[in-house]
Amino acid sequence: MPKTKHSFPVSNVRHFLEPGPIVLLSSQWQGQHNIMTLGWHMVMEFTPSLIGCVISSANHSFDLVRNSGECVINLPDASMVDVVVGIGNCRGTEVDKFEHFGLTPATASSVQAPMIEQCHANFECRLHDDAMIEGYNLFIFEVLKAHVAERPAQPETLHYQGMGQFMLSGKSIDRRRLFKSSMLT
Amino acid sequence: MPKTKHSFPVSNVRHFLEPGPIVLLSSQWQGQHNIMTLGWHMVMEFTPSLIGCVISSANHSFDLVRNSGECVINLPDASMVDVVVGIGNCRGTEVDKFEHFGLTPATASSVQAPMIEQCHANFECRLHDDAMIEGYNLFIFEVLKAHVAERPAQPETLHYQGMGQFMLSGKSIDRRRLFKSSMLT
Repeated sequence: MPKTKHSFPVSNVRHFLEPGPIVLLSSQWQGQHNIMTLGWHMVMEFTPSLIGCVISSANHSFDLVRNSGECVINLPDASMVDVVVGIGNCRGTEVDKFEHFGLTPATASSVQAPMIEQCHANFECRLHDDAMIEGYNLFIFEVLKAHVAERPAQPETLHYQGMGQFMLSGKSIDRRRLFKSSMLT
Repeated sequence: MPKTKHSFPVSNVRHFLEPGPIVLLSSQWQGQHNIMTLGWHMVMEFTPSLIGCVISSANHSFDLVRNSGECVINLPDASMVDVVVGIGNCRGTEVDKFEHFGLTPATASSVQAPMIEQCHANFECRLHDDAMIEGYNLFIFEVLKAHVAERPAQPETLHYQGMGQFMLSGKSIDRRRLFKSSMLT
């Protein structure tokens, strides 16, 4: 069943990405699309909403993202673990990953790259700075639009530890009372 | 009681950092030391072992790290949550954070910056590339030496979600059987 998603403030995507989940990065260029599994990302700024991603140049997605200057960062929940692993272990030059893994491409509003319907959240991104692609495979993206499923408020996420092992997210604890109000972002 | 730590391969620090835990970054420059709480980091390369960290220029640590070209990335476990929050909510220009939070500085082997004895792991880092500090506050560090506590094999870690809320790490699941052997790093 399709998830009902609402628009989410792009300056708050840290709520989902700063805890460090594995994500699925979808891209499209000249009629080709692809999905890759990605663990090397970080929040870099609130406004503009910047996310740094390291995409190995050995990946088919590297060229699609560099050429189109776009992608969608999709947040899978823990129920998608086998799809996440499968996507990371086959090549987009040989497999249509949407079709092979039964994923539904959804139309984004600000980019041509397809969103993955089944994911908990979709962050539409435009390449903001390509200066570090050559030296480090580092893409700095701006999140243009964020879509988040209405339920659950907090999905169980996957956090890659290497060697085929994933840490699952656990419960959350609240320490707001110990923060200065200016630090609560 | 001091933790017994062993040396750990620097090319494998992803095991601890890729899941996205909050870390404590310690630094030293000309007799001043400091600690900051940091959530904006990512693995960038296995060999050399590179970690990207965004350190706001508003932090006292920014100058200590830039001037010394060094730091230690320390991994606190969940029992240290109130210290982690406290460190992030006071200024190193006003408080000696080691003293104030009862933390023990330990001597590193490859850098002058102090390691935090109470943390589960300590990663000694040298600034590898400063080209993106000006534009993005992005420091690219090389991990020179890694020290990891013998027990537990997997500490409970803290993952910051913003607004004073932390996700705790949960259990791990193994999907090695679904990986191509070349992907098992």
